[in-house]
Amino acid sequence: MRELFQADLKSLGDQLSEIASLVRAAIDQARTSLETADVELAEQVITNDARIDYLQNALDEKAIELLALQGPVASDLRTVVAALRMSSSLERMGDLARHIAQLVRLRYPELVLPESRRERFAQMAEAAVQVATEVEQLLLTHDLDHASQVVKINTQINEVHAENFKAVAAEDWDASAPTTVDVTLASRYLERFADHGVSVARKVTYLVTGEWEPHVQSA
Amino acid sequence: MRELFQADLKSLGDQLSEIASLVRAAIDQARTSLETADVELAEQVITNDARIDYLQNALDEKAIELLALQGPVASDLRTVVAALRMSSSLERMGDLARHIAQLVRLRYPELVLPESRRERFAQMAEAAVQVATEVEQLLLTHDLDHASQVVKINTQINEVHAENFKAVAAEDWDASAPTTVDVTLASRYLERFADHGVSVARKVTYLVTGEWEPHVQSA
Repeated sequence: MRELFQADLKSLGDQLSEIASLVRAAIDQARTSLETADVELAEQVITNDARIDYLQNALDEKAIELLALQGPVASDLRTVVAALRMSSSLERMGDLARHIAQLVRLRYPELVLPESRRERFAQMAEAAVQVATEVEQLLLTHDLDHASQVVKINTQINEVHAENFKAVAAEDWDASAPTTVDVTLASRYLERFADHGVSVARKVTYLVTGEWEPHVQSA
Repeated sequence: MRELFQADLKSLGDQLSEIASLVRAAIDQARTSLETADVELAEQVITNDARIDYLQNALDEKAIELLALQGPVASDLRTVVAALRMSSSLERMGDLARHIAQLVRLRYPELVLPESRRERFAQMAEAAVQVATEVEQLLLTHDLDHASQVVKINTQINEVHAENFKAVAAEDWDASAPTTVDVTLASRYLERFADHGVSVARKVTYLVTGEWEPHVQSA
């Protein structure tokens, strides 16, 4: 019985990793579509999000079944509850990648972002892809260095997010109102994406150490 | 044992209702501060959000304790898992009310919204308060009429949200870029607030009927 349960827990972990891998692919493709106005790629991100939603539901059903059949306690119980929450964060990350792809589709064949913000958005989107990559690795390995990386990259993303808002408020901002909306939304989507990554990192950290805060090297 | 558990379930429901009541107060005050640039009220919303976060954590700990000690199955189990998820939706609703209050604080003593959008935003914010009120009533009574109302009001909010974006893209839009950002964010916050309300409505509907979709009268 106990061995069976460990196998179930592992399969829950595998399902989480699978979703994380799809989320990584989604944000990577959303990033490329944002930078190249590749509407077919954007469509793919939008279509594929249904798969993430489906897998989240499947994971949640599995977790509830585990709770019902096995009645886990202590750390096993916390692992199952954390899996439920992490699947919800990953699902939201998928939604946010889809939202970016939807901006691309809306503005096609134009690029969503004005020239003046493209370089910093490229860094921000690259950082979001890194967050997803670190989250995926964290779920696969439970190596908390990946959790620290997520927190560190999130700080960088927050900096660009604040800078985007400053740029829009500056006197030399001359983009159209719809472009201002797009910059606001794209920046917010990427910032939220990273926030959810931090939320997953905190949950894995808690499961491994009993402490909520990932350790961030000061280097 | 069984009776004790029912009392625990009830206390979980009471905790949810308490959070919903604070969320309703938060969005109501956020709405007033948005319309009057009342920065003290905005500060209050921002400060009070910590209480919502605290109560969410307390509810989650209680739910996990229930799972550990009672090992509920079937509908009791689904009730506890749904409570965990609804507390998370309510906590996000509190965050979104706080985000609106933060916009008010940022722009004080100016009003956040340009004159041309104030009337529609007033309706949108009033609808968001209604969503919170219906959610609170739904959690108190489990009367699914409140769930239908939430879905119906959400549709109205989505309409104003789309209209706000159209207004910003129209030729006669002459607000500054920071105001365009504020309109974008405030609209998005209210729309997300209502989405989370729908998410709670769907969960209660599922617990009561086994079906996900609240019935919406066509009248």
